Amino acid sequence: MIGRVTISLDAMGGDNAPDVVVQGVQIARNRLPHVDFLLFGDQAKLESLLAQAPELKGCCQLRHTDQAVKGDDKPSQVLRQGRKTSMWLAVDAVARGEAAGVVSAGNTGALMAVSKYVLRMLPGIDRPAIAGFFPTERGESVMLDLGANVDCDANNLVEFAVMGEVFARIVLGIENPTVGLLNVGSEEMKGNDSVRTAASILRQGHLPLTFHGFVEGNDIAGGAVDVVVSDGFTGNIALKSAEGLARLYTRFLRDAFSSSWLAKLGYLLARSALVKVKLRTDPRRYNGAMFLGLNGIAVKSHGGTDAVGFANAIGVAADLITHGFNDSIKQELERLKAIEEQPAQAAAI
Amino acid sequence: MIGRVTISLDAMGGDNAPDVVVQGVQIARNRLPHVDFLLFGDQAKLESLLAQAPELKGCCQLRHTDQAVKGDDKPSQVLRQGRKTSMWLAVDAVARGEAAGVVSAGNTGALMAVSKYVLRMLPGIDRPAIAGFFPTERGESVMLDLGANVDCDANNLVEFAVMGEVFARIVLGIENPTVGLLNVGSEEMKGNDSVRTAASILRQGHLPLTFHGFVEGNDIAGGAVDVVVSDGFTGNIALKSAEGLARLYTRFLRDAFSSSWLAKLGYLLARSALVKVKLRTDPRRYNGAMFLGLNGIAVKSHGGTDAVGFANAIGVAADLITHGFNDSIKQELERLKAIEEQPAQAAAI
Repeated sequence: MIGRVTISLDAMGGDNAPDVVVQGVQIARNRLPHVDFLLFGDQAKLESLLAQAPELKGCCQLRHTDQAVKGDDKPSQVLRQGRKTSMWLAVDAVARGEAAGVVSAGNTGALMAVSKYVLRMLPGIDRPAIAGFFPTERGESVMLDLGANVDCDANNLVEFAVMGEVFARIVLGIENPTVGLLNVGSEEMKGNDSVRTAASILRQGHLPLTFHGFVEGNDIAGGAVDVVVSDGFTGNIALKSAEGLARLYTRFLRDAFSSSWLAKLGYLLARSALVKVKLRTDPRRYNGAMFLGLNGIAVKSHGGTDAVGFANAIGVAADLITHGFNDSIKQELERLKAIEEQPAQAAAI
Repeated sequence: MIGRVTISLDAMGGDNAPDVVVQGVQIARNRLPHVDFLLFGDQAKLESLLAQAPELKGCCQLRHTDQAVKGDDKPSQVLRQGRKTSMWLAVDAVARGEAAGVVSAGNTGALMAVSKYVLRMLPGIDRPAIAGFFPTERGESVMLDLGANVDCDANNLVEFAVMGEVFARIVLGIENPTVGLLNVGSEEMKGNDSVRTAASILRQGHLPLTFHGFVEGNDIAGGAVDVVVSDGFTGNIALKSAEGLARLYTRFLRDAFSSSWLAKLGYLLARSALVKVKLRTDPRRYNGAMFLGLNGIAVKSHGGTDAVGFANAIGVAADLITHGFNDSIKQELERLKAIEEQPAQAAAI
């Protein structure tokens, strides 16, 4: 039996808050009956939304604040002046032990800055990373970093590999996930210093993970590995480039299916099959980017998502909490540290 | 009237050489009656292929060599020992003035190394860049660097911007192309040092180009700008990530259309419209990556392309030759140099 857990929500974060947040809770509630919610935001607005959802009465608590982080607020500004915002209070609930994790659809940079400041890093991690899912030919894979760090050295990449591997095991349920380093070619001599050094550390095999080697951009959707590791600059651009192409394809197809009566009829006949494609590639399905490396569970929902997407982000947080994600990371990091401190002994293992 | 030009071909480069090369010439010949070809490779094989294409007799000359660069040859090894390979000889024909440009579907790293060594750089360019086309919501755009340089400083990026702008004007025929710098966000403070410094140089407006600012990964296919500038590490991964997603989508659609009789019938009805989508996104249409910044025209065809793709790569080379691409680049670079040397005067213009 799963014990009850509480997730705190930045009810004012995202383009369509707080409506989407409350609707997301309604959807998540059915899938996650063991979860309670602590909503931070405008009490009057939230009460009127909750009045229309009486089934949520037992599982939702409200905490009023009239301050919220805006989409274009600078992280440094939020750190200085944002202690009463719904985002800060929601993150702080995790630090105070009132909640086991937090979900926000607000400003990514601000959420990262506040989470780092309030939750602190896990011991042994230099930098947090943003991890997300994407569809592949084999199912789903994990990719990190998606933009928390524009410059990464080899050690950062190795830490991302360790965290990503645990993430794939816990959230995707893959027993022995394979890990690849994103590069411009698969040969050993390719790439910049960071990826080459990180690969040589991972190749030594001292770490408890299956290192596949380098992967290229097309291997991401190809599903060559379960975990794709990259610096945040490249990872963010790679993922968004693929998203852009998905949108372009969708538009080309829409144009094609409306270009003639015959094509329209064809679409109608094939529709149920095409809807399945849409579901397989639905960005809402992959919503919920996890901030890895923090001393607490923090999940970022896409700012423009709808209730289905927000519910999925809640689901990611619930999975991470239920499966003791951060404890697993800590164990791996202690193992990593032990290896680093005793290289000779480790080599003999 | 366009004068006659000669293009040299590495007839042994690529997965399906020399067959695809000769078939590519057959297709290109119809579109480019003013072009003659100088083919370097195995004379016996090429003669037997040309015997089946009598229409090429007047426009093709053969030069025999029994050496060829292999796909896994290291560039340094080719530089030391590859002077008699079909690739080297084809590039050398440009340096010697026998040909106005070269096309090869061989090993990219080796082609870049040989081209740099044999053709030399244009004065004022530190690093060459690989530029290619991709489909967008607005038509086609140019992207560079696609992998020639894994590490780039701000000056390299500025030079890429200048070369890419000329490339878009000449090959895509866009009168006043807009140029964007690939980054993880559009705000000024985003990104690494190289992109921020390059953006501040481009924003000063001393250069004769329209700088749009930063663009994100999804803006590539979105068609936000005509020229996307990036370091070679990120550019290569972004483009290949998008290619990977295109393949994934195509596979999902193929699965969907064969999943039921109704879907199959729907496909048949919509087929002519769907074929147009296929043509719009056909990678062969975007084949032909140009090595910019060299003192000579060198075009790299995808190694696995077919005759249609190879013919398109020949077409790119022919366009660049006919429109005096390198002369235009030189002019822009001289203007850039004059501006750099006289910043005060330039600012007053």
